[in-house]
Amino acid sequence: MIELNFSNMMEEVIGKNGLSERRIEGFRGRVEDAHEQIKDRRWPELAFIDLLSQDTSEIKNIARHIREETEDFLILGIGGSALGPRAILDALSPFHNLQKKPRVFIYENVDPRTLKQILSLIDLKKTSINVISKSGSTAETAASFMILWDEMKKILGNDAPKRFIATTDPEKGNLRKIVNEEGLKSLPVPPNVAGRYSVLSPVGLLPAEVIGIDSNELLRGARDIHEKCSEPELWKNPAYLFGTLLYLMDTEKKRKINVMIPYADSLKSLSEWFCQLWAESLGKLGVGLTPYPSVGTTDQHSQLQLWMEGPQDKVVIFIRVDDYGDDIKIPRIFKDMEGLNYLSGHTLSELIAAEEESTELALARAERPNMTITMPVINAYHIGQLFHFFELVTALTGFLYRVNPFNQPGVEEGKNLTYGMMGKKGYEAKRKEVEEAREKKICWRI
Amino acid sequence: MIELNFSNMMEEVIGKNGLSERRIEGFRGRVEDAHEQIKDRRWPELAFIDLLSQDTSEIKNIARHIREETEDFLILGIGGSALGPRAILDALSPFHNLQKKPRVFIYENVDPRTLKQILSLIDLKKTSINVISKSGSTAETAASFMILWDEMKKILGNDAPKRFIATTDPEKGNLRKIVNEEGLKSLPVPPNVAGRYSVLSPVGLLPAEVIGIDSNELLRGARDIHEKCSEPELWKNPAYLFGTLLYLMDTEKKRKINVMIPYADSLKSLSEWFCQLWAESLGKLGVGLTPYPSVGTTDQHSQLQLWMEGPQDKVVIFIRVDDYGDDIKIPRIFKDMEGLNYLSGHTLSELIAAEEESTELALARAERPNMTITMPVINAYHIGQLFHFFELVTALTGFLYRVNPFNQPGVEEGKNLTYGMMGKKGYEAKRKEVEEAREKKICWRI
Repeated sequence: MIELNFSNMMEEVIGKNGLSERRIEGFRGRVEDAHEQIKDRRWPELAFIDLLSQDTSEIKNIARHIREETEDFLILGIGGSALGPRAILDALSPFHNLQKKPRVFIYENVDPRTLKQILSLIDLKKTSINVISKSGSTAETAASFMILWDEMKKILGNDAPKRFIATTDPEKGNLRKIVNEEGLKSLPVPPNVAGRYSVLSPVGLLPAEVIGIDSNELLRGARDIHEKCSEPELWKNPAYLFGTLLYLMDTEKKRKINVMIPYADSLKSLSEWFCQLWAESLGKLGVGLTPYPSVGTTDQHSQLQLWMEGPQDKVVIFIRVDDYGDDIKIPRIFKDMEGLNYLSGHTLSELIAAEEESTELALARAERPNMTITMPVINAYHIGQLFHFFELVTALTGFLYRVNPFNQPGVEEGKNLTYGMMGKKGYEAKRKEVEEAREKKICWRI
Repeated sequence: MIELNFSNMMEEVIGKNGLSERRIEGFRGRVEDAHEQIKDRRWPELAFIDLLSQDTSEIKNIARHIREETEDFLILGIGGSALGPRAILDALSPFHNLQKKPRVFIYENVDPRTLKQILSLIDLKKTSINVISKSGSTAETAASFMILWDEMKKILGNDAPKRFIATTDPEKGNLRKIVNEEGLKSLPVPPNVAGRYSVLSPVGLLPAEVIGIDSNELLRGARDIHEKCSEPELWKNPAYLFGTLLYLMDTEKKRKINVMIPYADSLKSLSEWFCQLWAESLGKLGVGLTPYPSVGTTDQHSQLQLWMEGPQDKVVIFIRVDDYGDDIKIPRIFKDMEGLNYLSGHTLSELIAAEEESTELALARAERPNMTITMPVINAYHIGQLFHFFELVTALTGFLYRVNPFNQPGVEEGKNLTYGMMGKKGYEAKRKEVEEAREKKICWRI
């Protein structure tokens, strides 16, 4: 089970920049209120919790077909539809494409250079394509889907539709309509599950199964942490403590940046997945926390200087791994070199663990708050725990801020302007606004 | 030539959150002072400017040997020694390892799982190893170097040293000592060039040449932007404007987060390279700016909500690409679907450009400051410009903050604690401090 150590958030340990037990105790009422909202499912979007008991047999069926029939697996999706699958892929099958089949490509952006590269690397004849869009009309995903649909038709003719799997709303939207008309295989994103809370739906579980990960293990981990986090008592609930501490660090200590630093290369993408969840869910109505994606030890040589001596605006969240599964011993060579020989005889695991602990402590001694999640080992069970833990924490923290953690109204304006420029019907005025803005801008160019 | 458009930083365009021409004008004295410091090279660390006229023939020689003799190229380095090479690799040879030889692996962390994976993927008999450490005693790089040295000796015996290229201080340090004793090939990191300013030294140029990039093109680009940025007049100098604007946005508008969002997948690593440079150079003495690594359009579906409606603490810096080199047309299919058919007939380049422009404008209309660097095309010449431009800007901005942009005193404490835990001589007291801290922590664990 993952564990939370929050000693270095507390006044007792780090002094005036920390929080007092009394202050947290006094916040109990707010947390109980949020607890009620979750327990009673007062928001329909809390449906992400229902994913934990889903039946995965259809996902497994489709994945088996993909594994048997194709050599490459191309995912078209953006936002949660790309970040979730990538977090799973990188954590549970690092360097996948250099050693396993089917290779997995995720095309999320609309960068033409990337798509050209992918198309030159894969053989479409032997490729399955998973198009993931809950609404079915995400511009980026629609564009790449239309290109791939056309290409596959040219190559496979009437067999092309068999190679597509759509993960989308069970009833609504353009993509569902195409599923029905063309007879595509499909999997549902439950209507009330927002994109960034969808990693444990078929959005993440199908890619997991395709690369050979048992999706039931992800769900089992999620169920276990859910039980632990169903505890109403604040001091016994790691999710409620996590959210409360970060909320208070913002509102009372002006710390609005939350650095997420797992000490494992393979968890970098999970850190990026968390960043979407945290940023998009909480950042509205003028409030919000800025999550910062990071990886240790690497960023000790990039960002740590700023965290140690820069502005007092951050909380650092470590993810520590107890057992990396693999290990390598540093040999006893260069014996007369004092700058190197102290490393001899230690393992890389010992070194990375020592660096993580040292960085926690160095921050604490500089009175910089930080906390640590410990995971016993990087496997599907514990990755499932992390996913669900962070989703629960995000919903809760949204309730503490009194914002809706499930919407994203702030991205509409940009979308509408894009529609205008691309000539979508009804958006002619938006196009004009862009053109007017262009005129104005010329003066400040160098 | 890269260009800077800073209209959306100005009061005239975005209202009260913008800066006035008068305020910038009044700041002229400070910039002139910083200009003098750069022009007269008052800091020896401005030696990174001298890199632009270096002779690359030895780099080219060594790279040719590597290309001819080996199939895999393994880089051992961390911080600037990894971020610089990776920025070049990803920008100028995306998906390199799936299509070209020698494949390039960068082992920066001390994650045992990653090294096991790399060792299972490469054939050491056909591998060249570039160990990069200016000081020659960086713990992470030393650990991996010792492991690889031992492995290569086992496999190649006395021929092993021939496969190592050390990029390090020309005279000092353990690595230089090993070069001299074992007869390794080596390239210099000039003594006054700090790691994060070293991408245009052999640190970045050797990997560039190994993957077939002409290092002289990187340098030519850097020289051209250096000339443009040698202009003493603030309003004509894009580097001085860039630094001044971000400095004033912090000190007068409390915007301490600088988001770097290139609209190209292949520039994500360049954005991460910038983040080290900016964070480590400016974050000290309680001041500093937090750089945020991002990529468009992807992060419109992850971070944009927060930038649009969250706290007023950010400036967004776009990097726009005029010509992606490749392009793909979105076909005319699904004609009766209004949610999709507006895309038909456009190219991906048009869509990504429209999204970039729309996002700039949406932010500006929400009175959120942003500016845009435009690069004509992603090639070595323009990547060289970006590198040098950001290095110049960083030095200048450090002078504006009156901090030393070339040191990183804040990371020493963590290193010393690690030495203690690893049993390095002279650090016994540090080990004790860690042990004492452990005792204290137990109480806040859940």
